[in-house]
Amino acid sequence: MVNTQLLQPQSIVVIGGSNDTKKPGGNMLKNIIAGGFKGELCVVNPKEEKVQGIKSFATVEEIPDTDLAILAIAAKYCPATIKTLATGKNTKAFIIISAGFGEGDEQGKLWEEEITKIVNSVNGCLIGPNCIGVITEYYKGVFTAPVPPFSPKGCDLISGSGATAVFIMEAGMALGVSFANVFSTGNAAQTTVEDILEYMDNHFNPETDPLVKLLYLETVSNPKKLLKHAASLIKKGAKFAAIKAGSTAEGSRAATSHTGAIASSDMTVRALFHKAGIVYCSSREQLLSVAAIFNYKKLKGKNIAIITHAGGSAVMLADQLSKGGLKVPEISGADAEKLKSFLYPGSSVANPIDFLATGTAEQLGIIIDYCEHKFNNIDAMVVVFGSAGLFDVENVYNVLSVKLEICDKPIFPVLPSVINAQREIQSFLKKGHIHFPDEVVLGKALAQVYNTPEPQSHKIALPEIDVEKIRNIIDSASEGYLTTSETVGIMDAAGIPRVHEIVENSKEKLLDTIETTDFPVVMKVVGPLHKSDAQGVILNIANKDEAAETFDTLIKIDSATAVMVQPQLAGLELFVGVMKEPGFNHTILCGLGGIFIEVLNDVAARLSPISKNEATKMVQSLRGYKLIQGARGQKGANEAIFVEIIQRLSALVEAAPEIIEMDINPLIGTQYAITAVDARIRIEKYKD
Amino acid sequence: MVNTQLLQPQSIVVIGGSNDTKKPGGNMLKNIIAGGFKGELCVVNPKEEKVQGIKSFATVEEIPDTDLAILAIAAKYCPATIKTLATGKNTKAFIIISAGFGEGDEQGKLWEEEITKIVNSVNGCLIGPNCIGVITEYYKGVFTAPVPPFSPKGCDLISGSGATAVFIMEAGMALGVSFANVFSTGNAAQTTVEDILEYMDNHFNPETDPLVKLLYLETVSNPKKLLKHAASLIKKGAKFAAIKAGSTAEGSRAATSHTGAIASSDMTVRALFHKAGIVYCSSREQLLSVAAIFNYKKLKGKNIAIITHAGGSAVMLADQLSKGGLKVPEISGADAEKLKSFLYPGSSVANPIDFLATGTAEQLGIIIDYCEHKFNNIDAMVVVFGSAGLFDVENVYNVLSVKLEICDKPIFPVLPSVINAQREIQSFLKKGHIHFPDEVVLGKALAQVYNTPEPQSHKIALPEIDVEKIRNIIDSASEGYLTTSETVGIMDAAGIPRVHEIVENSKEKLLDTIETTDFPVVMKVVGPLHKSDAQGVILNIANKDEAAETFDTLIKIDSATAVMVQPQLAGLELFVGVMKEPGFNHTILCGLGGIFIEVLNDVAARLSPISKNEATKMVQSLRGYKLIQGARGQKGANEAIFVEIIQRLSALVEAAPEIIEMDINPLIGTQYAITAVDARIRIEKYKD
Repeated sequence: MVNTQLLQPQSIVVIGGSNDTKKPGGNMLKNIIAGGFKGELCVVNPKEEKVQGIKSFATVEEIPDTDLAILAIAAKYCPATIKTLATGKNTKAFIIISAGFGEGDEQGKLWEEEITKIVNSVNGCLIGPNCIGVITEYYKGVFTAPVPPFSPKGCDLISGSGATAVFIMEAGMALGVSFANVFSTGNAAQTTVEDILEYMDNHFNPETDPLVKLLYLETVSNPKKLLKHAASLIKKGAKFAAIKAGSTAEGSRAATSHTGAIASSDMTVRALFHKAGIVYCSSREQLLSVAAIFNYKKLKGKNIAIITHAGGSAVMLADQLSKGGLKVPEISGADAEKLKSFLYPGSSVANPIDFLATGTAEQLGIIIDYCEHKFNNIDAMVVVFGSAGLFDVENVYNVLSVKLEICDKPIFPVLPSVINAQREIQSFLKKGHIHFPDEVVLGKALAQVYNTPEPQSHKIALPEIDVEKIRNIIDSASEGYLTTSETVGIMDAAGIPRVHEIVENSKEKLLDTIETTDFPVVMKVVGPLHKSDAQGVILNIANKDEAAETFDTLIKIDSATAVMVQPQLAGLELFVGVMKEPGFNHTILCGLGGIFIEVLNDVAARLSPISKNEATKMVQSLRGYKLIQGARGQKGANEAIFVEIIQRLSALVEAAPEIIEMDINPLIGTQYAITAVDARIRIEKYKD
Repeated sequence: MVNTQLLQPQSIVVIGGSNDTKKPGGNMLKNIIAGGFKGELCVVNPKEEKVQGIKSFATVEEIPDTDLAILAIAAKYCPATIKTLATGKNTKAFIIISAGFGEGDEQGKLWEEEITKIVNSVNGCLIGPNCIGVITEYYKGVFTAPVPPFSPKGCDLISGSGATAVFIMEAGMALGVSFANVFSTGNAAQTTVEDILEYMDNHFNPETDPLVKLLYLETVSNPKKLLKHAASLIKKGAKFAAIKAGSTAEGSRAATSHTGAIASSDMTVRALFHKAGIVYCSSREQLLSVAAIFNYKKLKGKNIAIITHAGGSAVMLADQLSKGGLKVPEISGADAEKLKSFLYPGSSVANPIDFLATGTAEQLGIIIDYCEHKFNNIDAMVVVFGSAGLFDVENVYNVLSVKLEICDKPIFPVLPSVINAQREIQSFLKKGHIHFPDEVVLGKALAQVYNTPEPQSHKIALPEIDVEKIRNIIDSASEGYLTTSETVGIMDAAGIPRVHEIVENSKEKLLDTIETTDFPVVMKVVGPLHKSDAQGVILNIANKDEAAETFDTLIKIDSATAVMVQPQLAGLELFVGVMKEPGFNHTILCGLGGIFIEVLNDVAARLSPISKNEATKMVQSLRGYKLIQGARGQKGANEAIFVEIIQRLSALVEAAPEIIEMDINPLIGTQYAITAVDARIRIEKYKD
């Protein structure tokens, strides 16, 4: 549990600090000293009286009371050391950088558990083991380089992997990205990424706290906590970008061998990020591009002006923005003509605004002024300006630098001349700016930021359903798949319209019952899970004789227990479903039925509870959405009812969290109604 | 037309060369001098006797005979100057860097045409105007920086945009990419990208010529020439990567305003690249990543070993490789156990091979040896090795450097520590290697390279079709859409199986004719182009009475001219089609019909002629391919017949290039047959 002793320690002891700065303990001490830690600092090292000029004690028993202990000693010595510190030295914060714990063998796991118990017993905070440490405004508690200067406007970085944190910082600093607090959670024996976010959320000060939060995760150990605090922080003004590595089967295997990460499906992780408002990233480059965008003013619309002296970059960027759903709207009219009069002949202002290889700093200033003040159809600008090596671009970057500060619309600078304008770029970065070396990489990241929604509201109005009835059915049902009558009961209580059906295991009874039915009907086998695969769904049954024949065929299918008869509905096949992954809220799925899920995997997924707005966006995000709207002379399905069914499903799982799997497939949709034809519910009576 | 005087001039004159190296003419001269040009060099500048130490003539009339003239004077002076050079000074190569020609106004266009005529009249070569120039082994004819040293193993770069060429070189050099010949074609008044490739192809020496060719294009001015020479060069051992910017509507508008580029559809450009074996890229970063991959040994299989001391990078890379269709196969068995014994406890060899933060150079060498010699399920290695700042990684990079040279399997080095290991990375690059700063960016580019096929063989066996009959129909047909009987004739002559149908505009005749037909039938309106949209397709007509009623309904539809009756076939809807873009071979399209093309745009496109293998890959690349194989209890369609129909369509357009648009939609496919139900052909009697 993160505490003040971890973040703002008055005293630090480095246990295993040495004079050899190539060793973790030595390097850690060096960084703390060089970082200008203002509190009491001491070392435990039995071989020295002074280490790097700092007083060293032979044993931990001899040190004075200390807030924070950093352990760089072999794993086997850690439990006893921690015990002494926790119980004898009033130490409340511990960073263990040593490896050889839970990521190693059984013995290591035991040490890790023992240590966690001790730390918990004094209400302390434990970071690691097997991590690179912590950087805060007050001390530089890492044994790695680079150690970025603490920048209150920089990014907070929380990483499950130490080396990845280092590589992210290195790549970021090269672009001008600055950092504030850095936490490497390592094995996260006690303190997880989510715990750190909880602390940040509970103590958040929007005036002084770093606003940009970058996460590198290989596991989501507490999805609900992550969702809660990330969303809360974003609502308070923070901005989040995160990598959840291990999104594929192969990556997941790699993650398991790396940190013993627990696999969550990528779909569910994306749904969580979506709900929280976290920008989903897949690479260090992407994460840092998004971080760089966060550093600039907020992108409030999708209309981008591309301002450049180099047409090719503008073309590639326009392509990329357009692929990502952003716009490069044409600029025309009197103001455009007026702007053109300030530029050299041959310049184009139609957007991209190309002011030619000979374009000047003054012209850039005027163009930006026009985009800021005159062109109302522009929400943001990307300036691509390099150097062909002929003249100095310092004055251009000076204009850019001023405009970045004073303009309300965000301006994103692409400075591609990493060799010709190396010096000018460095001087631009020293002013606190970040640059984007590649226009297309920026274009992709802009779309990712723009397409990530605001975090969902806490208060989501769900349709009213008959919770009492649902609870009665669930409470009296056995684990596993619900019976047909239980399923029907749940559907009715949740207000999900369904087809009325007859189920019989006796041919005679069935034929009696359908005496008054309107043909054609559909007959389905009851029993096998995958009815279609088992050839267990027969359509277009026109009369009683055919029904009799069909009964005989269906009842012979493996695991058949009965046969069901339903009126044959015509319309668009739809699908909704529920998936439950441990620790996550229920994932609600929707899609078009049939080939759309089975062949094309065209499914939208969001975490429950789902607002009307969110359900609408789910439906509209489907590749096959045009069919719901009506396409190819077909009428489509009632979107409002589909949205309501998705919300009812969400209300249902909120009332009955025991539902761990549910499929309503198909629902048949017309312009006027959507009717569930088949449903399956599986429950598990555990507490999440 | 590229010639020896352009590539290996014995003498160069810089017209407009000045002492001011901030001016293009001055900078151009400076670069030629600094580049160590060994031939005769002079300047034309009326104000000086010597310019940068080089003899200067007052007028062009005074200079001696000169192979290559570089013009850096105002556009209006160029025509007369070129005339004097071409007719009086035996000059055969011209580079005009000045702007103000075709990209500007009408007058500029006229000058450009005049100059081209003069150059053509002496069989000369003209590069530009409006370009940054040319770099060859013999001279550095550019006015921009950086001027990369000529590296015979470097990349040839041909760019339609000068600034983009500069930015590509800058970004490339920072990664260690080296360059050989650089051509900036500017307005390409005479010499196009394709002309340069033609020269390279006709004079190719695989022993001495640069093998990697990078292109930046905003227009494909001669698609067939590009295809021919790129494919030919690739067959001889060259490797191609290219950006064709302007792939979206917005990008295309940007390109048009930049260089007056002619838009080709992205689908057709991709089909061309595919046929030629060119790796399609969308950004400078991608282009350079692919170039860097080309620099290493050839990737011959999809199984990648990830070797690292930093697990996080390995997880992200495994994700990306897997998304791109590559594999990170598990490594196990006795050899894996043996390898493990050489590594520190806690290391993993299962792939990713993670040899921990403490992993050494020796261990890296052993791991690579095992991957090279023992693990047969590994085709290539990616080594991700950075530095946490504790120790020097020079010895690690030395081992890597040696292995890169001696191993047969390709090794791709990801060196993420751009700050901590800056010096070591620089020393690694100085050995001639290229590094990849981001593992995911590499992973994407690897998949792009792996998924680009070899160029298509020249000799493609197409099915035999009745060319004489086809020619007769086409030659006697009018332009525009063919009549129903012409269409049917073409289909039969091409051997594309079709449904037999009755077309009548009189209800009585129709009812007479269908007297002997098997019901149910389908009835369709004849006339409107989009029959489904017009509600002009009626299924399931069960008897003559219904047919009579339906006739009345259909004939009332706008632009209806008749009604067609066909047997109602059951099966999977398929689609094939033809599209023709100016200058390109015909694009052949295939897909599943119905929603797959109209809603999902699930279409495969390749350029004719199409081999059996290519047609098979087209079919298998469809998202809905599973349905052709048979899914959801449905039988699917005969893939071999579908492939043959695609090839027959290809044979048809080879015989009848006048076909500029053709749709066969739907074809109905079963396991035994595929039958065309509706077809439409449009012809244009022009010569391409």
